[in-house]
Amino acid sequence: MEKKKVVLAFSGGLDTSFCVKYLSEEKGYDVYTAIANTGGFSKPELEKIEQRAVELGAVAHATLDIEQEYYEKSIRYMVFGNILRNGTYPISVSSERIFQAIAIIEYAKQIGADAVAHGSTGAGNDQVRFDLTFQILAPEIEIITPTRDMTLTREYEIDYLRKHGITADYKKMEYSINKGLWGTSIGGKETLHSEQTLPEEAYPSQITAEGEERLKLTFEEGELAAVNGKPYADKVEAIRAVEAIGSKFGIGRDMHIGDTIIGIKGRVGFEAAAPMLIIAAHKMLEKHTLTKWQIYWKEQVATWYGMFLHEAQYLEPVMRDIEAMLLSSQRNVTGTVELILRPRNYTLVGVDSTFDLMKTDFGEYGEVNKAWSADDVKGFTKILGNQIKIFYNVQKRNKQ
Amino acid sequence: MEKKKVVLAFSGGLDTSFCVKYLSEEKGYDVYTAIANTGGFSKPELEKIEQRAVELGAVAHATLDIEQEYYEKSIRYMVFGNILRNGTYPISVSSERIFQAIAIIEYAKQIGADAVAHGSTGAGNDQVRFDLTFQILAPEIEIITPTRDMTLTREYEIDYLRKHGITADYKKMEYSINKGLWGTSIGGKETLHSEQTLPEEAYPSQITAEGEERLKLTFEEGELAAVNGKPYADKVEAIRAVEAIGSKFGIGRDMHIGDTIIGIKGRVGFEAAAPMLIIAAHKMLEKHTLTKWQIYWKEQVATWYGMFLHEAQYLEPVMRDIEAMLLSSQRNVTGTVELILRPRNYTLVGVDSTFDLMKTDFGEYGEVNKAWSADDVKGFTKILGNQIKIFYNVQKRNKQ
Amino acid sequence: MEKKKVVLAFSGGLDTSFCVKYLSEEKGYDVYTAIANTGGFSKPELEKIEQRAVELGAVAHATLDIEQEYYEKSIRYMVFGNILRNGTYPISVSSERIFQAIAIIEYAKQIGADAVAHGSTGAGNDQVRFDLTFQILAPEIEIITPTRDMTLTREYEIDYLRKHGITADYKKMEYSINKGLWGTSIGGKETLHSEQTLPEEAYPSQITAEGEERLKLTFEEGELAAVNGKPYADKVEAIRAVEAIGSKFGIGRDMHIGDTIIGIKGRVGFEAAAPMLIIAAHKMLEKHTLTKWQIYWKEQVATWYGMFLHEAQYLEPVMRDIEAMLLSSQRNVTGTVELILRPRNYTLVGVDSTFDLMKTDFGEYGEVNKAWSADDVKGFTKILGNQIKIFYNVQKRNKQ
Amino acid sequence: MEKKKVVLAFSGGLDTSFCVKYLSEEKGYDVYTAIANTGGFSKPELEKIEQRAVELGAVAHATLDIEQEYYEKSIRYMVFGNILRNGTYPISVSSERIFQAIAIIEYAKQIGADAVAHGSTGAGNDQVRFDLTFQILAPEIEIITPTRDMTLTREYEIDYLRKHGITADYKKMEYSINKGLWGTSIGGKETLHSEQTLPEEAYPSQITAEGEERLKLTFEEGELAAVNGKPYADKVEAIRAVEAIGSKFGIGRDMHIGDTIIGIKGRVGFEAAAPMLIIAAHKMLEKHTLTKWQIYWKEQVATWYGMFLHEAQYLEPVMRDIEAMLLSSQRNVTGTVELILRPRNYTLVGVDSTFDLMKTDFGEYGEVNKAWSADDVKGFTKILGNQIKIFYNVQKRNKQ
Repeated sequence: MEKKKVVLAFSGGLDTSFCVKYLSEEKGYDVYTAIANTGGFSKPELEKIEQRAVELGAVAHATLDIEQEYYEKSIRYMVFGNILRNGTYPISVSSERIFQAIAIIEYAKQIGADAVAHGSTGAGNDQVRFDLTFQILAPEIEIITPTRDMTLTREYEIDYLRKHGITADYKKMEYSINKGLWGTSIGGKETLHSEQTLPEEAYPSQITAEGEERLKLTFEEGELAAVNGKPYADKVEAIRAVEAIGSKFGIGRDMHIGDTIIGIKGRVGFEAAAPMLIIAAHKMLEKHTLTKWQIYWKEQVATWYGMFLHEAQYLEPVMRDIEAMLLSSQRNVTGTVELILRPRNYTLVGVDSTFDLMKTDFGEYGEVNKAWSADDVKGFTKILGNQIKIFYNVQKRNKQ
Repeated sequence: MEKKKVVLAFSGGLDTSFCVKYLSEEKGYDVYTAIANTGGFSKPELEKIEQRAVELGAVAHATLDIEQEYYEKSIRYMVFGNILRNGTYPISVSSERIFQAIAIIEYAKQIGADAVAHGSTGAGNDQVRFDLTFQILAPEIEIITPTRDMTLTREYEIDYLRKHGITADYKKMEYSINKGLWGTSIGGKETLHSEQTLPEEAYPSQITAEGEERLKLTFEEGELAAVNGKPYADKVEAIRAVEAIGSKFGIGRDMHIGDTIIGIKGRVGFEAAAPMLIIAAHKMLEKHTLTKWQIYWKEQVATWYGMFLHEAQYLEPVMRDIEAMLLSSQRNVTGTVELILRPRNYTLVGVDSTFDLMKTDFGEYGEVNKAWSADDVKGFTKILGNQIKIFYNVQKRNKQ
Repeated sequence: MEKKKVVLAFSGGLDTSFCVKYLSEEKGYDVYTAIANTGGFSKPELEKIEQRAVELGAVAHATLDIEQEYYEKSIRYMVFGNILRNGTYPISVSSERIFQAIAIIEYAKQIGADAVAHGSTGAGNDQVRFDLTFQILAPEIEIITPTRDMTLTREYEIDYLRKHGITADYKKMEYSINKGLWGTSIGGKETLHSEQTLPEEAYPSQITAEGEERLKLTFEEGELAAVNGKPYADKVEAIRAVEAIGSKFGIGRDMHIGDTIIGIKGRVGFEAAAPMLIIAAHKMLEKHTLTKWQIYWKEQVATWYGMFLHEAQYLEPVMRDIEAMLLSSQRNVTGTVELILRPRNYTLVGVDSTFDLMKTDFGEYGEVNKAWSADDVKGFTKILGNQIKIFYNVQKRNKQ
Repeated sequence: MEKKKVVLAFSGGLDTSFCVKYLSEEKGYDVYTAIANTGGFSKPELEKIEQRAVELGAVAHATLDIEQEYYEKSIRYMVFGNILRNGTYPISVSSERIFQAIAIIEYAKQIGADAVAHGSTGAGNDQVRFDLTFQILAPEIEIITPTRDMTLTREYEIDYLRKHGITADYKKMEYSINKGLWGTSIGGKETLHSEQTLPEEAYPSQITAEGEERLKLTFEEGELAAVNGKPYADKVEAIRAVEAIGSKFGIGRDMHIGDTIIGIKGRVGFEAAAPMLIIAAHKMLEKHTLTKWQIYWKEQVATWYGMFLHEAQYLEPVMRDIEAMLLSSQRNVTGTVELILRPRNYTLVGVDSTFDLMKTDFGEYGEVNKAWSADDVKGFTKILGNQIKIFYNVQKRNKQ
């Protein structure tokens, strides 16, 4: 009889290494490991992960390259929406997880897998992201989560692997670090306590720059098109270029305190120079090129979009409706934004755009007006105040 | 026959100085000057302004002290709502203007004035703030705005005053600076061009601090109650204490690009150390003490509240409804927030609060869960995904 | 050893009757039955239920009278918010369930119960309403749901009761009807199919009136205060008076199609003459007495309030914040509304209120204006159009 | 010297008839009359208007047929958004005005007019709709409004026309009636008083039907595609077919009480059988085919869309962004809705759609569940309640 196939979302870490062995030895599966790269892994890292999978006895290992798809379907809209969860956090790891889950389950369907497995624990958001995406896109495929179900200790897992001849050095890191294209999260120690923050050393990117540096970001219809004048057709490379510049200055470090999908509060540190600089610049460009109500409504729907993306609801059809609105809003968001970078700080200098609503033949702020008269504004104010005037009048009448 | 009375909102500057003379000499009014202090003026400054008014021939001068009222009715709610216009600007000058207008018109009613005058030009927001507030609270009192109506030049005004024996030195400042309790705005030169930002020298508060400094802000039901452990009954003093600490580090400098009430875009620089630090700390405390949906809805109504406050709509009755909601939301926002200040930068360290929703006997983020099982989350995720699963199922059915 | 105590939410129907016997006989509990009356039961009905409980072997039976509490804490705000779920459904049964659950669990705490039981199945909303409320208010008390857990058939339950000497006639009704103070829901047969609606006979209240009848509803600060001129201190009685008048005309019948808490779509018929008439009248009074933005924001928060109330989230603290806003909005909602009732139809005639913003000394709609000039409106329109004009200007510039 | 050209928006009524003569005789213009038909005029009516224009001395008269454009750009989105202003009023006349203004100004640009004129008074919304649209699309063309500027009486106008040899019978109608494709408004007498409603006779369409009639409306991606099974490629004809059926039953009569653009409250009666029936059916179809959050967000943006459309802001770019979202939401809104019509009343029977989310292989409401277990819902509820449980726990801790 043929063995059943399971696709395991594999990172090379202790939990998923244990899963390879456990699923093949104890559960009798043919284990197909897969890793979906949204831009957080280098080529050597991916090769090392593949090698590890093979050593552990995976029948096959797949590296799913979804950088461009992740940019097109997620980062693009997060920039359009200037999305910072709770005003702070670029939805980094959380949005990557969704696209990893989609890639994994599509791969599982493609190879006709009977089951799909992931190594998430029962305490966080990732389990929901994986389970929900898997169930929606392939309700017929079973989901297996050994780590969550058995609540195993590290010691147990290491011991189990050793018994099966795997003696790799799974040393416990002080912090759990998730590197991604749109930011790196840092959890552990201080992040578990409300009163504390991460020390300098906890951040993967150390501050090496001094003094000031100018940065010019050019956008075309809302998308990053050039960095310091150099055009980028590959937006992923453009993001990497900004990250390389910004991370030297330690820009984009902060702590996200948020509500998990399962209702508890969680804290996580992060560094995300590129997202912070790109979003700040994009937002300033919008302040110059969009009308007041475009800005208002974009913010309304984008806040929701960010929440739903974070909370594993990317596949909700309302997200497609919001994307249509965000896309429509970007038709004039074209121009160049200049910034000054300093250690731990940046200043938005200004905007150069042919769509700038400040550059106009009409009157200008603070200057003598050309396109209207003092009487026009008086009339405007009179009419603008009509309803409130009536309201106060009615109040007075009722008090008499 | 008795002369008519006009109350003039008087700042001591060239425009309103001209108005004193013009209204008495040309229009035959008894001019009552008045200044409403929301916290931006020192005692000596106020005395100097009074002296100037008398010199110019004002029948009487009134200094209306509304610091506490301004805090109670405006700053308090701006902190409750974490209000930063367009994500950036603490509604500093704009909110002060409203309360100054209210104080002026109340004074005018009290002394039985026939008219009220202000020195705003026809290009900005302030004219609308004054006109609208005056009209609503005293529709029977005439509004006079010589500067706006005659679009006079500085030279003309200076010349006119000289002819009437007033030879004070009205030198043109490079920047127009408005100092207030809740921030100082800086306009002129670079702020008139989209591509530029203010130079270091343009900021009234220069950076003098080096290294790091810890700051502890304690809130009680959303209001700042202590600074570095020292309790403040007078909240205005508490804000001043924070400003003194933060401004040494150059914190809270930025450029506001926004839509004026009259529909054009405007830019203005500002520095506002206290608002930035207080709001940042307050917001972090809320992330720990409010539920997800409290945070969501507060943000919704506060965005609107900030917009309406900025746009002269403070007297709209919906503002009272929003205030009721904001006030209700603060019942648990009690605790201490620690920050690290550095030149041009601050880090939110953490929060200590007995209302902290992270400190709980239930499960904690990232840790093995105590209050629910893996099966609970599986059930949760299954049900959570129900509608999207059905949607995808229906999509599939329709594609067949 | 003392027996454990369970409080059972008891309706007298087959499911909960089974539970009484099952919990005492099979599980060894002392069963305390309780019914919380939000206004849907008459005195004789409540007595019959008590008698049935005793016959079944309940140790004690409690009738919890929460009509006034239900009005104060729920109906009042539903009227303030003009809440009709999906534009159609007055949150009738769903809101009552929450207050019943609260009363039951408070009673359980009061008598020191070890467990609390309800008869909901695993397919609907009620199970979530009971479970959630119980868990929040008394996490220490166990929840028992025999009907849901064992998915028993009617036949099994009837047979089980017969074996234990209970031979009452539990005949299956064609429709499942839930009568409440704020509406009666009717489920079954046609409501299970998307293409069908309930036949005339399915509605408990038959249409008996002909021709027209006038109805006057008087509100004081948003609350129904008089019906046809007769004042009511007891608001529950006022609602009953309106229901008696309206139900003769078959007003307020409709079908609610909505999303259940567990993600599936559901349909249910209802009749709710009083809620429809009261909300329609209240809403019209608000159109006359509130400003445009009060109406806008009330609707925003009320839509959410209705959704959360419906979805068992009444205890979420954001609900208290929204209630504060709704309450604040009602300070001027005082006046009398006249309606004409006809079979299956009503017309809102008009409003008489001293807070009517249409009755004013200022200009009136459609009439020659008194409080502003043609030039004022021209100025208003000019300024109002500023930003769009600039936008189109910029568009043109970019097309050249 | 060549005479200046003015394009006059001409309806054939007294005000615009006066304008033809006045503009040519007193102001020396070549008057080009134009009428933009959005579907409210019959062919004979349009011919009569043309004839009248010629008699009055218009140099040329243009009938601009914009029915299809009005449907495509306005009605379509009002149906997508189920737009009823204040929950009542299909934006009938107000939306037509905008498209008439656009057609008129485009015509004026096309023939190289120097000015454009309309007959609106200074008391209502229409003046703002015309002025704003004209200014935005052709800031270089002067706007002339004799009726508004001179506040003339009917008697004066009739007299003036008679002196110029025009003796047509301009009898004052009891009600001012505006017939349009998307509804007919009726103003005057009772609508000027808060306490009154229109009498039966005031409605152009009298109730002639008795008993019941079934109506089937079929939608394809949100657009009305068939009426009682008969397909319509021309959507304007489909709307007329529904109107013909519904108006016999007196469906869609109501009173709109709303806030005018200029801040005063206004009342207007209307009848709009087709809009009411089409929107009601479309909305029910959406309840079956859209997810909960699609419905929620559509309603958010559509409420705003309706307000802005009503308030002359159709050209605001945010409207295009909202249209993109509304359009995206309609991809599954396909199916047939059945209604029963009765005099003054209709009942929504049900929906038949292959996109119906109620028809599913998953569990169904009120039935024993197939796709999840009792334990799944228990887990769901446990996790769903996590944050509120923690909140209550923290409250308790703080009270001790």
